[in-house]
Amino acid sequence: MERTLWWDGPLDRLRLIDQTLLPGRYESIPIPDIDALVEAIQSLRVRGAPALGVAGAYGVALAARTADSGCYLENVGGLAKRVRSARPTAVNLAWGVDRALAAIGETTAPDEVAAVTLAEAERIADGDIATNRALGAQGAALLPDDATVLTHCNAGALACVGWGTALGVVRSAVEAGKRVRVIACETRPLLQGARLTAFELQRDGIPVTVCPDSAGAELMREGGIDAVIVGADRVTRDAVFNKVGTYAHAIAAKHHGIPFYVAAPTSSLDPFLSGAEVEIEERGRSEVACLCGTPTVPDGVPVRNPAFDLTPINLVTAVITERGVFRDPKELFAAWRS
Amino acid sequence: MERTLWWDGPLDRLRLIDQTLLPGRYESIPIPDIDALVEAIQSLRVRGAPALGVAGAYGVALAARTADSGCYLENVGGLAKRVRSARPTAVNLAWGVDRALAAIGETTAPDEVAAVTLAEAERIADGDIATNRALGAQGAALLPDDATVLTHCNAGALACVGWGTALGVVRSAVEAGKRVRVIACETRPLLQGARLTAFELQRDGIPVTVCPDSAGAELMREGGIDAVIVGADRVTRDAVFNKVGTYAHAIAAKHHGIPFYVAAPTSSLDPFLSGAEVEIEERGRSEVACLCGTPTVPDGVPVRNPAFDLTPINLVTAVITERGVFRDPKELFAAWRS
Repeated sequence: MERTLWWDGPLDRLRLIDQTLLPGRYESIPIPDIDALVEAIQSLRVRGAPALGVAGAYGVALAARTADSGCYLENVGGLAKRVRSARPTAVNLAWGVDRALAAIGETTAPDEVAAVTLAEAERIADGDIATNRALGAQGAALLPDDATVLTHCNAGALACVGWGTALGVVRSAVEAGKRVRVIACETRPLLQGARLTAFELQRDGIPVTVCPDSAGAELMREGGIDAVIVGADRVTRDAVFNKVGTYAHAIAAKHHGIPFYVAAPTSSLDPFLSGAEVEIEERGRSEVACLCGTPTVPDGVPVRNPAFDLTPINLVTAVITERGVFRDPKELFAAWRS
Repeated sequence: MERTLWWDGPLDRLRLIDQTLLPGRYESIPIPDIDALVEAIQSLRVRGAPALGVAGAYGVALAARTADSGCYLENVGGLAKRVRSARPTAVNLAWGVDRALAAIGETTAPDEVAAVTLAEAERIADGDIATNRALGAQGAALLPDDATVLTHCNAGALACVGWGTALGVVRSAVEAGKRVRVIACETRPLLQGARLTAFELQRDGIPVTVCPDSAGAELMREGGIDAVIVGADRVTRDAVFNKVGTYAHAIAAKHHGIPFYVAAPTSSLDPFLSGAEVEIEERGRSEVACLCGTPTVPDGVPVRNPAFDLTPINLVTAVITERGVFRDPKELFAAWRS
């Protein structure tokens, strides 16, 4: 399977699909150092909670190769910290960094540190696909045959190493022989739904239609949406954080009695926190105020641009994980602990 | 007061602000004939239910000046019909055309027809401002001091001859000494909120912030939205038709216990119809799939682009009209009949 990000052996560096070029160009770029990785994360060349987890782990392998040799381990830790805090909302980024750092253990020699961190990152990357396959199989059972699924943003192969979470459920259902169509909300301001979800589903021959985010509720009212499935950047004990717009879809789904599913690997769970403790990243004005270089908001008018929103967990019909489908948050977090 | 559209006496033709140029340029264009008017309506150079009503009436005056002289009245009627059906959802367009046609009465001489239709169109245009002033005063009483109002699309001066409906309520509240801030949802795909609402409020010194449509529910959850006020393209006995996105805001407002007001002149009421009988205009793919000429949806992926949505009237806290504020639809339509 083609991957969204991978270790380029000959280069001994990370390489990833630059998602800002899609749908026009499907191209990979090398990530030579931590500066480039932080830039790639912040400008959403790589995005999606599971992919960020893997990028975080590869980031530590990158740090192990580029840290100054004086106070080497301290420098690796400092570079890893920069990756860890490149974006605040998705828990997976910190999770991936921490897992790769933990793999260092008692190792101190730069060559060995480079080897063990990369090995751990590769394990996490391979595990991501296995996890999404398992998650997809769990969720596929929830979809009827001949289903129309509304999704928001991109919780697909491009948000992971491969297969996807929300779109992994769709892929697994299709693989199991079900007919599934997807309504992809375009996902302003950065259009991950229009650009990425539409791209990867079209490539896989799964029928997809794009609509403005604001049309989601109207399409539910008209009938014909059988389920909403979204990914998650973080699931706390009481709330789901995901791309802004998720919450409005959750409220509308409840209003129409349509099941609202969150597809997230257990690495996105963060049961020690409540939603109120999570920072919602506020991104720059220009993402909303300029379209392809043309100003669409008058100069001087301020913009709100929260990248994520908070959906109270009681609006979620079930959380689909690689370990099962959980309708009760208590059971979800019990499974996380076990 | 500057007008959004007006009769250019020396030219003896309609003239209107080309709203597709905003916020970059505030410029008027002449409308020499019915072809140009239909084009201006369909491409949203002029838009907004009340403005479309006035455009419809001026359209008949234009028809009276440009119709072929053989079978003159029939030709006027034929041209008027083209204007009447230029867009299907807003009731005001048909209403304005019909009112100006009715003014012809027994008149048959082209000069006289030209005079009486223009006189009627001017009456409707003047009436629009008076109506919106009255509507604004009715609605202003609903807003607390120091209020934050969320609105969608542009139900402002630019959607009318002047003053506005939803934004007329805001203007009247400000004129009455209240402090009001506006959250303008950008309103994909054509960004009337970002381009037009932000423009006209900034021009009037009323604080305005733009956000993606999908952030509306999150801002309600965060607190600080005191009311949602939108316009309407048509109010049937059971539903409000307005720019797509309105329905999602209505559901979210109800979920948060925030009042949801529809500001509409009685010319937008259509109590003889139920919502199911109204056609929702589906507009072209490129509005969603291209941003300023750059494709954002992969070639071959279809798009849904309903221009409006249907909000069941039971989600509406009150309809604000020039004749009063109506919390009960029965009383609203009784006032319409009286």
